[in-house]
Amino acid sequence: MSPDRTVQVLFSAPDVFYDSFFPVLTAALAEAQLPTVIRREMDPAEVDYLVFAPNDLITDFSGFVRARAALSIWAGVDRVLRNPTLTLPLARMVDPGQREGMVEYVVAHVLRHHVGMDRYILSSSGWNQVAPRLARQRRVAVLGLGELGGACARALSSLNFDVHGWSRRPKTLDGVTCHAGAEGLEAVLAGTAIVVCLLPTTPQTENLLNAETLARLAPGAVVINPGRGAVIDDAALIAALDDGHLGHATLDTFRIEPLPEDHPFRAHPKVTVSPHVASLVRAETAARVIAENICRGEAGQPFLHLVSRRDGY
Amino acid sequence: MSPDRTVQVLFSAPDVFYDSFFPVLTAALAEAQLPTVIRREMDPAEVDYLVFAPNDLITDFSGFVRARAALSIWAGVDRVLRNPTLTLPLARMVDPGQREGMVEYVVAHVLRHHVGMDRYILSSSGWNQVAPRLARQRRVAVLGLGELGGACARALSSLNFDVHGWSRRPKTLDGVTCHAGAEGLEAVLAGTAIVVCLLPTTPQTENLLNAETLARLAPGAVVINPGRGAVIDDAALIAALDDGHLGHATLDTFRIEPLPEDHPFRAHPKVTVSPHVASLVRAETAARVIAENICRGEAGQPFLHLVSRRDGY
Repeated sequence: MSPDRTVQVLFSAPDVFYDSFFPVLTAALAEAQLPTVIRREMDPAEVDYLVFAPNDLITDFSGFVRARAALSIWAGVDRVLRNPTLTLPLARMVDPGQREGMVEYVVAHVLRHHVGMDRYILSSSGWNQVAPRLARQRRVAVLGLGELGGACARALSSLNFDVHGWSRRPKTLDGVTCHAGAEGLEAVLAGTAIVVCLLPTTPQTENLLNAETLARLAPGAVVINPGRGAVIDDAALIAALDDGHLGHATLDTFRIEPLPEDHPFRAHPKVTVSPHVASLVRAETAARVIAENICRGEAGQPFLHLVSRRDGY
Repeated sequence: MSPDRTVQVLFSAPDVFYDSFFPVLTAALAEAQLPTVIRREMDPAEVDYLVFAPNDLITDFSGFVRARAALSIWAGVDRVLRNPTLTLPLARMVDPGQREGMVEYVVAHVLRHHVGMDRYILSSSGWNQVAPRLARQRRVAVLGLGELGGACARALSSLNFDVHGWSRRPKTLDGVTCHAGAEGLEAVLAGTAIVVCLLPTTPQTENLLNAETLARLAPGAVVINPGRGAVIDDAALIAALDDGHLGHATLDTFRIEPLPEDHPFRAHPKVTVSPHVASLVRAETAARVIAENICRGEAGQPFLHLVSRRDGY
C-alpha cells in the first residue's frame, strides 16, 4: 500500500444498514490509520472494495475492474453466488454479534418447545402438572455445523441436550454426536425430537427437509429453521404438520421474504413465523469485520471468510 | 445397624408420588442391601424413617418417637417448618433431576423474554425486523443462590447474560456479580431487566418483591417466579404491571395452589401462569436421594440436605 493512497469503498446496501454501519466502519478504519472514503454511489471502475448487501441491488459486477474484494455484510450470499459477473474474491459476513444472536434465538426456541411453554403463554387457566422431560432425555439435531450451527450445537450441549449434528464433510465437536454425508443424514434425523436447520442453500441442500426426510423424525417432532428457507420443502412440511407427524415448525427464513401474508405458513396453527430476526447482523461488531478485511486487503494478507464458489459457502 | 434389622419406612404422600417413587426407592435400597419395608400407613411409633410430602397430610409429628429423620420428597418445606411437633432432623429434597428441570424452565423463560418470542407466538402476521439485544447487554438478577438459584445463575452466565445474584449471606459464583444482605438487595435490583426469584419463604423474604423493590427494576422489566409465591406481594405486582413499569410476570408458584381460577393473575394479559411445574421432583433421581439418606442414617453418617430451623432452609 502506498502511503498516500486513499482507499475507495462503495457501500451498497439499504439505508438502515448504511446508517448503522457507517459510524462504526469509519471509526474502525480511522483507528487502523487507513485513509478511506466510503461512498454510497461511485463509478464501479474506481472502487477498491465493494461492501454490499447481497440482495439484488447490484446485478452486474463486471464493472468492478479494480476492486480487490466483494465484502458481504450478510452471512447468506446464495443470491449472488451464481452470478457469473461476480468473479472477485467474495467474503461472507461472520459476525460475532450475529453468532451470539443466532445462538440465543436457537436455544430460546429449542427450550420453548422442550419445556412446552406455549400452552401457558396461550392460556392462563387450568392446573395440569405435566413434568417435562429433562434435556438429557431430549434428542436435538443441528443440521449444518459451520460458524452458526457449531455454536448452537455447543450451547445446546452445555444445557445437557442429547445433541447430534450433521454436516456434509465429517466434523468433530465436543459433546456433539457428529454425522456426515448422505448416510449420516438418515442417522441424524432418526428419532430426533427437535431439528434445527442451519444449512446454507446449495444445490445439495435445497429441499433437503422433504416428505421422506421429515418422516424420519420422531412423532411430534419440531422443526426450527433459522437458516435458509429453500432447505425446506414448504408443501411437505405443511403436510407433515397436518397429518400429525410433526408437532410444530418455527420458521425464521423463507423462500420469499417478507413472507407473503397469504402464504399457508401464516395462518397455520402449528407454525410460528418470525421475520428473519435470528441472524440479524449487529453493525457494532460486523463493521469491525469489514474493516479488518479491508486492512487485510491493503496489507496483502488473505481475506477472512472467503466463500468457496464450488461448495457454495 | 444390626444385620437382621428391617428398616421401617413410612411413605406419606399422595398416590402419584408413591406410584413413581416406590419402584425406584425399592430398587435403590435393595441395591444397598438394606432390608426395608416401605408402607403407606403404619403406627408412628414403629417408623424408622418418615418419607413425606410436606403438605398438610401429617399435622402432628409427636408420635414418631423412634424415627431417625423426616425426609421430604419436596424442596420446599416451609409448610411444616414451624410445626412445633416436628423435632426430628428434617431433610429437604435436593434432587439433581429437579435442579436440571428448574434450570431448563428458568433459562427457557429468561430467553423467551430476552428474544421477545411472545409476539411471534401470538401473531403470525407482519414483518417487523427488530434486532433483540444480545444477552451480554441484558442484565438478569437471580434472587436466592442456593442449589437451584446458583445453578440457574451459572447457566445464564454461560449464555453470556450479565448475571447478578443476591443471597442473604455473601456468596461467590464464577461469572456472577454477587450481592448480599439488605443493602445488596437495592444494588441487585437497580436497572435489572429480568429478575428470577428463587428464594425460600422465610419471615425475611415474605413480600420481598413489593411496591418499593419492584420500582427499582428497569422500566419494562420482567419478573419470573418459580420459587415461592409468598415472596411476591401480589397486589403490588399487579399494580406495577398495570401502571406500565413492569413488562411481564411469569409465575409458577402462588400463595394458594392450585391458583384459584378467579385470581387476578389468571386473566391478566401481562401474566403467564404455569402450574408449579418448574421444580417438579423427578422420582427417578429423587428416590435415590431418599435411599442415600436412609443408608446414611443406618450407617450413622450425617444426613444430606438438613434444614436449619433457624434459617428456614
